[in-house]
Amino acid sequence: MIIQLKNDISESQKEALIDEVSQTGYKITEVKTQLGDYLVGIGKKEFDIRRIGQKEGIQDIHIVSDEYKLVSKKWKVAPTAIDLGDGISIKDGDMAVIAGPCSIESEDQIRKVIGHLKENNIKMMRGGVFKPRSSPYAFRGLGLDGLKLWYELAQEAGIKIVTEVMQVSQIEEMYPYVDIYQVGARNTQNFNLLDELGKVDKAVMIKRGISGTIEELLQSAEYVFSGGNEKLILCERGIRTYERASRNTLDLNAVPILKAKSHLPVIVDPSHGIGLREYVSQMALAGVMAGADGIIYETHEIPEKAYSDGQQTLDFAQSALLTDWIRKTFEMRKTFDLI
Amino acid sequence: MIIQLKNDISESQKEALIDEVSQTGYKITEVKTQLGDYLVGIGKKEFDIRRIGQKEGIQDIHIVSDEYKLVSKKWKVAPTAIDLGDGISIKDGDMAVIAGPCSIESEDQIRKVIGHLKENNIKMMRGGVFKPRSSPYAFRGLGLDGLKLWYELAQEAGIKIVTEVMQVSQIEEMYPYVDIYQVGARNTQNFNLLDELGKVDKAVMIKRGISGTIEELLQSAEYVFSGGNEKLILCERGIRTYERASRNTLDLNAVPILKAKSHLPVIVDPSHGIGLREYVSQMALAGVMAGADGIIYETHEIPEKAYSDGQQTLDFAQSALLTDWIRKTFEMRKTFDLI
Amino acid sequence: MIIQLKNDISESQKEALIDEVSQTGYKITEVKTQLGDYLVGIGKKEFDIRRIGQKEGIQDIHIVSDEYKLVSKKWKVAPTAIDLGDGISIKDGDMAVIAGPCSIESEDQIRKVIGHLKENNIKMMRGGVFKPRSSPYAFRGLGLDGLKLWYELAQEAGIKIVTEVMQVSQIEEMYPYVDIYQVGARNTQNFNLLDELGKVDKAVMIKRGISGTIEELLQSAEYVFSGGNEKLILCERGIRTYERASRNTLDLNAVPILKAKSHLPVIVDPSHGIGLREYVSQMALAGVMAGADGIIYETHEIPEKAYSDGQQTLDFAQSALLTDWIRKTFEMRKTFDLI
Amino acid sequence: MIIQLKNDISESQKEALIDEVSQTGYKITEVKTQLGDYLVGIGKKEFDIRRIGQKEGIQDIHIVSDEYKLVSKKWKVAPTAIDLGDGISIKDGDMAVIAGPCSIESEDQIRKVIGHLKENNIKMMRGGVFKPRSSPYAFRGLGLDGLKLWYELAQEAGIKIVTEVMQVSQIEEMYPYVDIYQVGARNTQNFNLLDELGKVDKAVMIKRGISGTIEELLQSAEYVFSGGNEKLILCERGIRTYERASRNTLDLNAVPILKAKSHLPVIVDPSHGIGLREYVSQMALAGVMAGADGIIYETHEIPEKAYSDGQQTLDFAQSALLTDWIRKTFEMRKTFDLI
Repeated sequence: MIIQLKNDISESQKEALIDEVSQTGYKITEVKTQLGDYLVGIGKKEFDIRRIGQKEGIQDIHIVSDEYKLVSKKWKVAPTAIDLGDGISIKDGDMAVIAGPCSIESEDQIRKVIGHLKENNIKMMRGGVFKPRSSPYAFRGLGLDGLKLWYELAQEAGIKIVTEVMQVSQIEEMYPYVDIYQVGARNTQNFNLLDELGKVDKAVMIKRGISGTIEELLQSAEYVFSGGNEKLILCERGIRTYERASRNTLDLNAVPILKAKSHLPVIVDPSHGIGLREYVSQMALAGVMAGADGIIYETHEIPEKAYSDGQQTLDFAQSALLTDWIRKTFEMRKTFDLI
Repeated sequence: MIIQLKNDISESQKEALIDEVSQTGYKITEVKTQLGDYLVGIGKKEFDIRRIGQKEGIQDIHIVSDEYKLVSKKWKVAPTAIDLGDGISIKDGDMAVIAGPCSIESEDQIRKVIGHLKENNIKMMRGGVFKPRSSPYAFRGLGLDGLKLWYELAQEAGIKIVTEVMQVSQIEEMYPYVDIYQVGARNTQNFNLLDELGKVDKAVMIKRGISGTIEELLQSAEYVFSGGNEKLILCERGIRTYERASRNTLDLNAVPILKAKSHLPVIVDPSHGIGLREYVSQMALAGVMAGADGIIYETHEIPEKAYSDGQQTLDFAQSALLTDWIRKTFEMRKTFDLI
Repeated sequence: MIIQLKNDISESQKEALIDEVSQTGYKITEVKTQLGDYLVGIGKKEFDIRRIGQKEGIQDIHIVSDEYKLVSKKWKVAPTAIDLGDGISIKDGDMAVIAGPCSIESEDQIRKVIGHLKENNIKMMRGGVFKPRSSPYAFRGLGLDGLKLWYELAQEAGIKIVTEVMQVSQIEEMYPYVDIYQVGARNTQNFNLLDELGKVDKAVMIKRGISGTIEELLQSAEYVFSGGNEKLILCERGIRTYERASRNTLDLNAVPILKAKSHLPVIVDPSHGIGLREYVSQMALAGVMAGADGIIYETHEIPEKAYSDGQQTLDFAQSALLTDWIRKTFEMRKTFDLI
Repeated sequence: MIIQLKNDISESQKEALIDEVSQTGYKITEVKTQLGDYLVGIGKKEFDIRRIGQKEGIQDIHIVSDEYKLVSKKWKVAPTAIDLGDGISIKDGDMAVIAGPCSIESEDQIRKVIGHLKENNIKMMRGGVFKPRSSPYAFRGLGLDGLKLWYELAQEAGIKIVTEVMQVSQIEEMYPYVDIYQVGARNTQNFNLLDELGKVDKAVMIKRGISGTIEELLQSAEYVFSGGNEKLILCERGIRTYERASRNTLDLNAVPILKAKSHLPVIVDPSHGIGLREYVSQMALAGVMAGADGIIYETHEIPEKAYSDGQQTLDFAQSALLTDWIRKTFEMRKTFDLI
């Protein structure tokens, strides 16, 4: 059960309400985000919502049977739009293109990517400065200094920054330089990180876990939302299966299912999803047709020389073509009456 | 190694050739299909193909390092086209639409589906008369009588028949009434069935196994080809993973990978791939963008009353829309310079 | 619902009974095995079994909520014992050891294996004469001639034969020479094969599918049982997962679960389960502790020279040790009060 | 490549050595643990180790081809023993029993569990005070206060504490009260947490990831080791597969494989591995036979009333039996000549 509270509800009204609902057996969690106040009730009790629906201080009340609540479409039918400022946003009915290298490597590299993005009217850039690596001996990214450098150049160019945050202590130090915090596939169930990202007023993109279910991805989003941050984006990036002909198995089924279950925007990452440069474009376009609100992919001036993930990275010529195709495909999709 | 033989090679020339190549350590299998004669050499020997390349009776010779040989693109770069007669075919550069019910149920049902297909200019109809069911007590299909009835009506309407063959003994009895034998996901590695389908001169569509790899699908196709039948179609229909929000995980990564590895056409089955009617259209269109040469999906006048698979079956209105969208999406895809 | 019929029930009594139960909405299948007559009712209807429980001709009646019925422990609590004659059997409370090569290769090989088995008091020998191979160019076994040769030698030595049947047409030709028909992991859902094995009066061991669920294995056994053959053995042999450090993932969880759900004996195959010779013994013993009624493993005089599966095959010294350890472990297990 | 340094190597000797090896193309990481100093060289260069093997300051030098280095058995053949003090340890050749509730709930609960452990001579107790929960609304544990309370009682009883650490900031606050830090399955690739645990001088038990490979588990251990902490324990607790009859698929194959690849002790968790109380004992004993150095399982006075995981928790009577069986099975295993 979700009870949306009015802004002007008094503390005593709220307490009385919590009291009353708790007595029916629901466990109530109070959630205060930048946008609103909610009471989330957990339990499977018989409860006639009309009983409290007329009380003062309540804006609306919904029964949500899903395990996740606040990210469910069952109470909030209108899609959530993520506004990044300067007219840049990620939302249903639009097609976000996010491109950039796997790792931020150098000023020269950043300048070249930004140049390429500007030429192709791409407004959001991805790149890693903190890199999760399975071996402790591998390159772990340029860190905060790299991020600051990137920020300066991106700022100048009017380009928004999407980059991974790996641990709680980085949230604050990254804050001034980030537009979208990315939670990586190995951290989808790092609940402490999710809790803390709930306290931030910047957007968070959560990647599906290495072998995470759709349900778990939504629960992870619920963590951030219930922590106070509604600016959430979901990302399908491929799951681990027995198949080894591709790096991961891009589960495009997840796209229409997530769109139906949640009001949050859904992004597809074909680069990690298939892991092979030759097929990234096909999978990106497939993602658009599956219903994605955006595509995030890897590009680099010379993919073969990239510090990481070169085998799945497009060069600028391929990237320019792909962006054009994504947009055309999206225009066509809009003419179809897909749910 | 694949040695393509000329039609006019003499028996003694052939024997001499086999002899010579065998002495290098290759194990030679002679393959005779409706279209050509081949010697397939298995082994990883050092061998200078120029040594025998000039011999009489040889048309061409190729080193193929894949585990599968005759279905590989490494020797036959030109895509294989499956000609079903009457101007109907399945091939690269074209978009086949195959629609119909999960099970053939009755004359009335067949007539209605055929009516719908004709209205929408769909030339190929799917339907099961022998149904693999996990429970021995479930409906197992109308059998051969159902097929004969269907054949009469389809014949009249100029529509081709795609239907599953479950065992060797059915091949012959089904022969007069079938245009494409379908090998189901539970039979992808029924090697005896594949062997016998190699002896038939009708097309065979092999579905990927329940948890089959891309490599295994190609090996299964190799069985049929090396048995003598080159008329092969591959079908991605979803694989088994840990995810339960969808019936299967449609692995669209497999589409560009199969197209790159093999000269055979690739079909996508979004109905089994996601298993939920609401999302079949999105996944069908995603399949087109991933590079499929055709889409096979389930449709029924009243899906809720279908004997099987109703939850993933489109009604005729949805089917009509989808077919239109598939064709438009394919037209757009052709304008892109995808590999 | 399962209605066990008395032997002396008259046809008219039976028809009246079927009629009555059908009218409650159950779909009735009549099953006649070598051991008994049953009516299996499918449906989820409200039904008071006392209503017909007193009728003449009925021995007993059970509600079975599982999808599988006749193989369920819900109606037959006593474990099924498979008697192979000559005092050799596979059953709960006993520990069957089945050993032998992957492929039957030659008279000499058979003689050596039989010698080894006799020395170690092993009464059942495995070996393949029809080999399912993913490549059509690989060795496919010695076929029926190999089986006849093997039979002669095994017969003489008082050893029972366990070997794979791949297709319907082989059932009859193999019949005189086989003690246990094995259904391989690629054929677990070859429903036609299962149907036909239901008509045979020899034991059938069904291996779990490559990625088959526990439920599906039981359903496959239900096919054979409902076809008329109650002499069934289940075999856990590893499933396909994302892990590649072992050939398969031996799912020993399946052992106690199968034992709890079904009255059929359960065998573990550690050779295919891990696929690495060095660890076969550990996994065999783990299988015993998990509750297996028997172990089937691969052994060969010189594993490195085996035609197939050499990397997972024990030599005779290892095999002798393992058999001894299996028996000791089983003796200890019997002293524990495990369910 | 691993170069073990002598304690008395001088800084200048070390620098010269790093210099020389770096010039061959190896990337050198210096690792300093509580037990020793190492240079780890990453790269696949031709290198004759005899060239530097005679230099002063070097104790030994090893080529290690695995991706993980310091946790590999290729350089350290002798098994690592984890000494917890007071004569309690986890090591090859011994059988550690670790038991306790899923969550620490109350003083009364702790007292009862400790009483049970003492009666059965179990020296290590598990329990969660920080609980990773997929829903933000679920019980998250008693936190540090619960740990302090537990510590007091355990200390008194001479029992060691094994408990999960979820984030970097908890490491220090938990330090005085913990004997073994457990890294949970959702944090196996939380690299920052692993890095920081490298700086601690207490033992760390790393659980295999939800769908982690054996290789990844070893890489995660490499993080902690290369961070400075050699006191490492590996834990198999089941992986995610398509099978739903059990909570996870306990991959006992991993036990002998991990033991062969690494010098670290390996523990099996049958409670999470199967997730069903009735079968925990069988899987525990199977784990012993697979070669485990210890078993960790869940027990509670009244499992049905446990705050979490009740369905997989043993009551004290079952736990007492199981511990006895584990020890007897281990005694028997020692008499076998398993590798």
